[in-house]
Amino acid sequence: MKHSALRQAVLDANFKLYESGLVISTFGNVSAIDRANGVVAIKPSGVSYKAMETGDIVITDLDGRVVDGDLRPSSDLDTHIELYKSFPTIGAVVHTHSYFATAWAQSGQPIPVMGTTHADYFNGTIPVTRQLTDCEIRDDYVRNTGRVIAEALGNRDPLSIPAALVNDHGPFCWGKDAADAVHNAEMLEAVAKIALHSRQISLESPEISTALLDRHFQRKHGSSATYGQTERSKQV
Amino acid sequence: MKHSALRQAVLDANFKLYESGLVISTFGNVSAIDRANGVVAIKPSGVSYKAMETGDIVITDLDGRVVDGDLRPSSDLDTHIELYKSFPTIGAVVHTHSYFATAWAQSGQPIPVMGTTHADYFNGTIPVTRQLTDCEIRDDYVRNTGRVIAEALGNRDPLSIPAALVNDHGPFCWGKDAADAVHNAEMLEAVAKIALHSRQISLESPEISTALLDRHFQRKHGSSATYGQTERSKQV
Amino acid sequence: MKHSALRQAVLDANFKLYESGLVISTFGNVSAIDRANGVVAIKPSGVSYKAMETGDIVITDLDGRVVDGDLRPSSDLDTHIELYKSFPTIGAVVHTHSYFATAWAQSGQPIPVMGTTHADYFNGTIPVTRQLTDCEIRDDYVRNTGRVIAEALGNRDPLSIPAALVNDHGPFCWGKDAADAVHNAEMLEAVAKIALHSRQISLESPEISTALLDRHFQRKHGSSATYGQTERSKQV
Amino acid sequence: MKHSALRQAVLDANFKLYESGLVISTFGNVSAIDRANGVVAIKPSGVSYKAMETGDIVITDLDGRVVDGDLRPSSDLDTHIELYKSFPTIGAVVHTHSYFATAWAQSGQPIPVMGTTHADYFNGTIPVTRQLTDCEIRDDYVRNTGRVIAEALGNRDPLSIPAALVNDHGPFCWGKDAADAVHNAEMLEAVAKIALHSRQISLESPEISTALLDRHFQRKHGSSATYGQTERSKQV
Repeated sequence: MKHSALRQAVLDANFKLYESGLVISTFGNVSAIDRANGVVAIKPSGVSYKAMETGDIVITDLDGRVVDGDLRPSSDLDTHIELYKSFPTIGAVVHTHSYFATAWAQSGQPIPVMGTTHADYFNGTIPVTRQLTDCEIRDDYVRNTGRVIAEALGNRDPLSIPAALVNDHGPFCWGKDAADAVHNAEMLEAVAKIALHSRQISLESPEISTALLDRHFQRKHGSSATYGQTERSKQV
Repeated sequence: MKHSALRQAVLDANFKLYESGLVISTFGNVSAIDRANGVVAIKPSGVSYKAMETGDIVITDLDGRVVDGDLRPSSDLDTHIELYKSFPTIGAVVHTHSYFATAWAQSGQPIPVMGTTHADYFNGTIPVTRQLTDCEIRDDYVRNTGRVIAEALGNRDPLSIPAALVNDHGPFCWGKDAADAVHNAEMLEAVAKIALHSRQISLESPEISTALLDRHFQRKHGSSATYGQTERSKQV
Repeated sequence: MKHSALRQAVLDANFKLYESGLVISTFGNVSAIDRANGVVAIKPSGVSYKAMETGDIVITDLDGRVVDGDLRPSSDLDTHIELYKSFPTIGAVVHTHSYFATAWAQSGQPIPVMGTTHADYFNGTIPVTRQLTDCEIRDDYVRNTGRVIAEALGNRDPLSIPAALVNDHGPFCWGKDAADAVHNAEMLEAVAKIALHSRQISLESPEISTALLDRHFQRKHGSSATYGQTERSKQV
Repeated sequence: MKHSALRQAVLDANFKLYESGLVISTFGNVSAIDRANGVVAIKPSGVSYKAMETGDIVITDLDGRVVDGDLRPSSDLDTHIELYKSFPTIGAVVHTHSYFATAWAQSGQPIPVMGTTHADYFNGTIPVTRQLTDCEIRDDYVRNTGRVIAEALGNRDPLSIPAALVNDHGPFCWGKDAADAVHNAEMLEAVAKIALHSRQISLESPEISTALLDRHFQRKHGSSATYGQTERSKQV
């Protein structure tokens, strides 16, 4: 089978996403990109998670044409591809309609940095896209969804803000690889839930200080990260 | 056993409903209609889901008389029958007291279209019925419950709005067959939960645009649906 | 073993309560009364649910003295006994700190009849007790808890309103036997959860009409109940 | 293996914490102190709960230097050590980002005593720390987190208030040993959830009386505790 490692990673990540409880019905898909070979592997459209096998993962080129596989790709494919083109450093994309992140998306509100759980994964506010115009909805809707996400990120590093909320719709997340992108989707949902409950306790919950945001984000992601094991201690 | 295929579909759908977590206590029932033979198959009243067998499913005519089966039909039978008479295109009916849909029903508020999760399944606001009058409650209450649902739908296509909230009570859902109706009940609960949380984040969460509603509902249900697999690719 | 049937029923009900998810830590206990023999069987204090056996259930008289069993009875025993004395028709008592019922108790608010889920089990508002005075807390606190519950019920039929919220504390429920009392505790929690969410959607959620309350409560509990199977159909 | 009993207790408590559902991602750690030998046992940093073994638990001295073990200690080690130094009576520390306690922490609000569930475990308001200054964040952040917790407790007995909320961050809990500290973390989350829902029902939910607080806290913790079994009855 061609691209079997890429397919396997995407299959595993789709299973992990399903087990995480983030997927409502079939509203969930993971893709990953092999930039060297210019191909994307993505979940087939509307296929049950339980029945999915490695060979069902669809391989497309960066124009969205199927180059290997018998099934239709996820109907969200063009959003994924647009994100790969806009964000050259990312390796995978995840879409869900998870409850709390979707509630923020439906409310049209970005998620401010209200605590260190957020700061450990997202180096700033999680943006919400502007609403699409009627023209953008009627013509090339799926690709335009990717475009407004890129617009919402602006010039921020996508690996520092690995998620955005599509207005009236739900979250898209990404990461350096498929497992990382799924983990970011899980963390986004946790952050969205805690943020909602924080607001319910106090409407005035302010954002945390820049010093605290930097301290936490850099702890896990900076060049001098102190979290987890070094390679040496991991090998022990 | 007579009507064994219909009974089996209704039994399977009742099990699926139970496993979905939508059923509080015994507040849940599924029926399906065989219009060619003029019979309805429905869950027996107050029987434990775990103990239910194919032969326990009750077969009635369209006047609610048991034509096959030893048990009493669900006490909600007359509502189901009224819906089959009012909505000639539907094949199955589901009733639950699922938490979030019931909360909207108790609040007497319809669920506006606040996002695409809603739009993928419901082509507009999910209506809430008017309250029944004291006379309607005292005389032919169960049938009148079906009547106010039909009244609330008005001239909209019931397969485009496959659910309604009975004021002070809870949701009724329907679909083209029993599995479809149960799936709609699951989606209604997800939509109701996300809608509540959206309001908690922003009381002003507006409805989505007609263009976006059309785009999503037609994507899954229109003649040019792009979601899922074509027959050909499904066979592969 | 003496009182083995009573003990077994109380053990089974305590297990069922534990499996229901209503018990936080060890905040949960079930007792039942054998009025003919003047004894109460109750969960031992602070014993893990998993390790409990029939012989661990404590048998006391109606003055709270242990008449059979090696363990201390639940520290809530005197509340249970007070309820058995005040409500001669009940056969069992359940206490939990289940999340949503406890939230209503802590808020000092009764739960109004906002829907038919409530009306199917509780024939009116679920009362909240007045706060205990400092004297009532310092002297005979546990028995006084039972007294304010009886005071809150007033002259209503305890089997028609089989629960009350102890202010600042949590719910006590009861029923005709141990299984019934546990089921009422489960329904109270469902009703409390839906009522909270109803209020979150609309602060003005009004109470349902008396006609609807009567219709639903009588459907399950009246002399002409239409819910469930008749003895004859049950035997089939 | 050195310190094997201490390691085993810490491993068991970390597993229990994981099974409790309080741990989001890897945001959770338990340590315990052996004051006679001047060592602390703590979870290794960023290691999966499922893969953890007794030998992975890291042993440090009270200056945070690893004295036994091949892995890096939890990055929260210095907070744990600061708490052991400030609170001489405690034997273990637990940190989580559990949803509801973290929401209160993010809102910057202490949890008032709104009911007896709280009073059974916490003898007063659960304090929230002041926000750290930028200097305290940039220099010795982890130790300063422990210092503001000690500052927030003031001169109250840490075993009577076995938790604090770190502003903008989440809860730290403690106890007389590792199992006790984990149990306190579970109770804190339950109390935080019920307190949020109580406020949603009534913004004016007042604190309970001092008499009721004393009655409940002393019932479980005082010298004349009446809850649970005596040693004699436990041996039966």
